[in-house]
Order: sequence, then C-alpha cells, then structure tokens
Amino acid sequence: MINKLVGKIKKLNAPVVVGLDPKLEFVPEFIKEKAFKEYGETLEGAANAIYEFNKGIIDATYDLIPAVKPQIAMYEQFGVEGMIAFKKTVDYAKSKDLVVIGDIKRGDIGSTSAAYAVGHVGKIKVGSKEYVPFNEDFVTVNPYLGSDGVNPFIDVCKETKKGIFVLVKTSNPSSGEFQDRLIDGRPLYEIVGEKVREFGEAHMGDEYSYVGAVVGATYPEMGKILRKIMPKTYILVPGYGAQGGKAADLAPYFNEDGLGAIINSSRGIIAAYKQDDYKKFGEEGYADASRAAVEFMIDDIRKGVGL
Amino acid sequence: MINKLVGKIKKLNAPVVVGLDPKLEFVPEFIKEKAFKEYGETLEGAANAIYEFNKGIIDATYDLIPAVKPQIAMYEQFGVEGMIAFKKTVDYAKSKDLVVIGDIKRGDIGSTSAAYAVGHVGKIKVGSKEYVPFNEDFVTVNPYLGSDGVNPFIDVCKETKKGIFVLVKTSNPSSGEFQDRLIDGRPLYEIVGEKVREFGEAHMGDEYSYVGAVVGATYPEMGKILRKIMPKTYILVPGYGAQGGKAADLAPYFNEDGLGAIINSSRGIIAAYKQDDYKKFGEEGYADASRAAVEFMIDDIRKGVGL
Repeated sequence: MINKLVGKIKKLNAPVVVGLDPKLEFVPEFIKEKAFKEYGETLEGAANAIYEFNKGIIDATYDLIPAVKPQIAMYEQFGVEGMIAFKKTVDYAKSKDLVVIGDIKRGDIGSTSAAYAVGHVGKIKVGSKEYVPFNEDFVTVNPYLGSDGVNPFIDVCKETKKGIFVLVKTSNPSSGEFQDRLIDGRPLYEIVGEKVREFGEAHMGDEYSYVGAVVGATYPEMGKILRKIMPKTYILVPGYGAQGGKAADLAPYFNEDGLGAIINSSRGIIAAYKQDDYKKFGEEGYADASRAAVEFMIDDIRKGVGL
Repeated sequence: MINKLVGKIKKLNAPVVVGLDPKLEFVPEFIKEKAFKEYGETLEGAANAIYEFNKGIIDATYDLIPAVKPQIAMYEQFGVEGMIAFKKTVDYAKSKDLVVIGDIKRGDIGSTSAAYAVGHVGKIKVGSKEYVPFNEDFVTVNPYLGSDGVNPFIDVCKETKKGIFVLVKTSNPSSGEFQDRLIDGRPLYEIVGEKVREFGEAHMGDEYSYVGAVVGATYPEMGKILRKIMPKTYILVPGYGAQGGKAADLAPYFNEDGLGAIINSSRGIIAAYKQDDYKKFGEEGYADASRAAVEFMIDDIRKGVGL
C-alpha cells in the first residue's frame, strides 16, 4: 500500500491528502435539510449528512489527489451512526481508488493494539468466516506505550500489506509539553523518530517503509531533523493551511527525490466554500470550491517545495 | 461521577473494576452457538455473542463491584457491529447502576479531542436536538499531545460531571521505552503525573479529582512515587492478575484513607471459568465463575492492601 501511495503521489505530482473531518457546521444547509427531512434531527440524520457531504468532496477531487484522511473522532462523536458514516466514507473513497489513511491515533498494550489493528487494517475471524471490519489502508498510531503497543499494528500490516503513521511530533501548540522534553540532551520526538526508523526497517516497501511518521507542518526545524533521522519514512504532515503551516516551510519534510512527505489539509479544503476566496461557489457549489482549494494547495506546495 | 465512584468503593469496600474485554475466544460455546444460529457467523453474530457474554457477567457481579471498564478495542475489532455491542454494554452496565469507565485511550489535537469527548462523555447537538452518543462515565485519555489534547475532555466533563483517567505509566512491558526516559534527572511519567495533578485541580470532586491517572500494577515503586505526586488523583491500576501484578504490591497505590486507587482485572475475571481454580463451574456457569473470581479478588486486595 505504501508503494501504491508513492506511485499515486508521483503520477499526480501531488503530495497531498484531504482530511475528511466533517464537523456538522461545515456541512451546507441544503445537505443537512435533506438528511434531517429523511432521518429527522437525529444522530442518523447527522451521520447521513456528513456522509453525503464527504461523497460530494470525494467526487469533486478524487482525480487530483492520492489519498484522503478521515479523522475518526469527527464520526465517533455521532456514536454508532457516526461509525457507520465513517465506514461508508472509507468504502466510498476506496471505490474511487483513493488511498485511505484512517486518522485514529490508537495505541494500547499489545493484545489491545492487536485488536485495533485487526479492526482497522486487518481481518477478523468469526467462526469459520473472515471479515474486514473498517478496511482503511493506513492508520495513525500513538507511541506513548512503546514498542509493544506499536508492533501488533506492524504485524497485522505485514499480512495485509497495509501501513501505519506513528505520531512523532504533532502539530498542536502544546505538543512540546512532553514531546520536546530533553532526554540526554535530545528531545523525546527524536528518540521516538529513531524508534520509528527501526520499526520501519521491519516492513519496507520498494522505496519507502510501510511505517510512516506524523510530523506537524507547524514545526519545520524539527521536520528537517526528523527527515534526516528517518530517511526511508514517509512523513504525514498535518497543520498546513488552517493550522498555520506555510508551503514555503514544507521543503525540509521532503527528500531530495521530491518524495517522502504527504501534506494534509482538512478544514482548508472541505470548508473552502466558507472562505472569502471561494465564496463565489456558494453553498451549492461547496464541492467545486473544495476542488479549487485542492488545485490551489497542490500548486502552492509544488512551488513552495520546488517539485 | 467521581463522588459516585468513591461512594460506591467505600460502601462495598471493594476498590475494583472488572474489565469487560471480551475476546471471542473467552465466550463460551453455547453463547456463540446461539448467536451464530440467530445471526450467522457474522460480525453481527460475534457482537451479539460478546454482548450476551457481558450481560451474564454484569448480572452475576454488579452487586459486588463499583464499576466496569469495557475496553473499546475489543468491540471496535468487530467494526460497526462491535460498536453497537459496546454501546449496549455501557447502557446495560449503567442500568445496573455501575460506574462505566470507557477504556478508549483517545487523545488528539484540541478540536479533535473535543469531538472524542463529546462522543464519549458529553452531548452533541444535531439541529435543535441534543444526544448522548456513547455515554460512559469516565474515559481513559492518552497525554502524548500535551495539555491541549487533554483539556477539551476536562471542559466537557465539567459540564457533564464526568471524568477521565490520563495514562501516566502503563502496565505493559515496553511502557518504559518512552515513559521512563529521564528529563532533568526525572522520568517522563513523573512529569506527566505532575501535569495530571494540575489538570485535576481544575475539576475537583468532594475528596478526589474528576481527573484520574492510569498507573500499572506491574510497577509498584513507580506507583509509590506517583501516589505522592498526585495525592487527590484517583489511580486506575491495570495489570493485576493475568498481567502479573500482585495484591501485596498494591498498597503504595492507595492513600492513608484507604482510598485513591481502583484495581482492574479483565481476563482474570471474565475468563475465570477457563482457569483451573474455577473449572468446576463449567462453561454454562461462566458467570458464576466470574462472581467467584471477583469475590477472591476483592478479598485478595483487602488483605494485600490492608483495607
């Protein structure tokens, strides 16, 4: 799956991923009205509204982008109905041949991580039958519990040729509170980065590892160091756009081959129609606004990085 | 809710929580057969089997214990159907007046943590209506992203009078890989513990904070230090029993008032009927075996801790 991701990034010359994080406030009124009319102002209504919203964005952008990254929290907040919308979103994106990165940030003790891995990137046995529950291609993993919380994901991914992105340095303002603390003179995120390189050696694709890393766009100096520590690691970079990361700051996340990083934008793409630059599309044209925002983003990153 | 938890622990003199982590292999054949007959060897069949299994254990133990802790990964691995079983398990436990600790180990950047919080311990608005999606009383939270990943949970919990347990020192063998690394001569888990104390001051119950901590039973010396760092923090202690933690080692997790810690056992209780000590109950008597194992555990902890 890392080979497919790298292949699509090369073909499209577009190292981007669209974050499908549909807050209900991002969903145009006409979609909500339709869903509420059919299902009421219920969790089911909300879940159907966000799924329809996603579908429009996928339809309008799938030929430009290699991947989407649904943030599961935005679905989980609607309970079981939200999880159904998550699953439908994953399936729909895959039907359009997009690589799907489930932003789930799971991580637990060994046997529990194994259960998460099975549920999201693996298969589960029920009696004599086998099922693929959520079926993402990659998931994000939290490393706080150490190797035995991460390795079960890798074990499952070896079987299914899928992958993970391990949180190394996150994009949020307080990420430094623990991640930047110095251990023998070096920040924790570097220690985690070294571990991710090690994890990655155990499950290599053709050019890059099936084990990637998450490093926020908001910390480019750290991105530069982490790029060197993890040369064969794909870096998933959140924080571009709405969170403040600039294209000009993204070059250090890439290798000299022009590969090695994939930049995420969520709100900036899916709620583009609410921004002044894309207001002309109107609510009805929200998906076209997202397409225009994707085109701008790809161009911005190509120029900023020099691709 | 922390007051309710402390009240129940006092009344029952039982600082224990039963971990409802139902692997399919723990479920007796007669329950699986019934579920598979009704729903087929499907995810729905598996989910129904684990829910029926849980129900039996809750019915057999609810008068002895203050709380249950369903591990969501064990449900999530069955996809959407598993999440339905999780929700039904939470609701059923609450109908028996048990405190429910959702072991979800979520944590993300601010707005995303807020969504998890809303979904699990909060309420969500859909149009003019409000819903309570998963409705646990407490959830476990991963601190790797720092304060702005934890505070949204606390904000939501302030409104709903619910609480969280933040991972400080986990019970697994490799937990030390990052958690034990020294920062200015002190391990990371102590730094996190101090932060948890601070978080806790922002949302206090009568005697203890709504913000608890997770500290594994497998590291009693560390438990002793963390107890001192976080005097008003309830400590959720996994790792007793199957993972190797002994009752004699648990005293340091408690305060002098005999409170401040709640010990979890999962496999040791829910799969008791598979152990030599409880084999006499047979598969049909699995729930009675769980009750006997709970009685043994409570007695063992009372003696070990001196309650």
